[in-house]
Amino acid sequence: MPDIPSLADVWRSDLSHLQETAVRREEIYRGNLLHVVKDTVDLAGNMTATREMILHPGAAMVIPVLPDGRVLVEIQHRYPLAETIIEFPAGKVDAGEERFATAQRELREETGFTAGRWAYAGRVALAAAYSDERIDMWLATDLTAGANDLDEGELLELCAAGVEELMQLAQQGVITDSKTLAGLWWLERWQSGKWQPEWR
Amino acid sequence: MPDIPSLADVWRSDLSHLQETAVRREEIYRGNLLHVVKDTVDLAGNMTATREMILHPGAAMVIPVLPDGRVLVEIQHRYPLAETIIEFPAGKVDAGEERFATAQRELREETGFTAGRWAYAGRVALAAAYSDERIDMWLATDLTAGANDLDEGELLELCAAGVEELMQLAQQGVITDSKTLAGLWWLERWQSGKWQPEWR
Repeated sequence: MPDIPSLADVWRSDLSHLQETAVRREEIYRGNLLHVVKDTVDLAGNMTATREMILHPGAAMVIPVLPDGRVLVEIQHRYPLAETIIEFPAGKVDAGEERFATAQRELREETGFTAGRWAYAGRVALAAAYSDERIDMWLATDLTAGANDLDEGELLELCAAGVEELMQLAQQGVITDSKTLAGLWWLERWQSGKWQPEWR
Repeated sequence: MPDIPSLADVWRSDLSHLQETAVRREEIYRGNLLHVVKDTVDLAGNMTATREMILHPGAAMVIPVLPDGRVLVEIQHRYPLAETIIEFPAGKVDAGEERFATAQRELREETGFTAGRWAYAGRVALAAAYSDERIDMWLATDLTAGANDLDEGELLELCAAGVEELMQLAQQGVITDSKTLAGLWWLERWQSGKWQPEWR
């Protein structure tokens, strides 16, 4: 077995040789949903490359926990996957919106619920190879029911599931959505006592 | 608290009202990396909508486990995120390639290692809202070292980390890559005995 450097050592070392620096940007497409650009970048060692990518405003995902310990999930058809999937409520940051406000707004719009307590659970970068989208993840408890307010054409079924039930569905390959799997990782850490949320 | 239907009940019910059906496709962009299309779709209730999305061939990710229990990770600069990040080895399916072959090839090309035992650990859909990319995840053990074979312009640092070390880095917000977080969920399930991999 060769001597493989430890992550701790490499992570602390000078990594500037990996860096890529923007040189110029070409606008490719600005649609209703997707903003595509093609950048020319400088790599170390006088090399140049192009990077095609999606510019995204970012998003928030909420893991809403009911008083009985079950969590709210949504069933939605996702056309790109040609599948109806199970996922946590989430949505895009509006222009100028503070990211915590996005979480509160999306919870209310998609589920009708408002939450009394919130805890930040980190951030997930969806598709590092071609998108700058990052989703902030939030735990929400002390839920109060109200009326939802879905966007036009936004069709979903709201339902409640036990945490272990969701873990089983992920293990069976039923839940595959990346942000939802990341959320399940945080739920697992929380429920096992390895993560103590800082409630606000 | 309103009566929220259970996921098990809704998941078994008729969900055809959520379905979206393709009507026509418009080619938007076919770059070196990104293939962007804009589809017109029929929703239930005579509504029509457009769906802009990335067509992707799919990918494979490998969680390579060393004899001492540490796992191999890569440090790479990800231009779309403008960040140098920690992630598991992964790469795109080549045209006509069987998906398991992608996992074997990417492990060898990016790390130099080949693996004696493999176990399939499910699939992650990266960005359900705008990409059809799915990444198959694999555990790989019984590693044998060899020479790597990086693509031109593919710069990365290979290193080894303890599983608990990676969990801590995720909890601290250092690891944010969605496929890597999904992989950590599977590692957690494996190490806690909740998931018994089927080795091939």
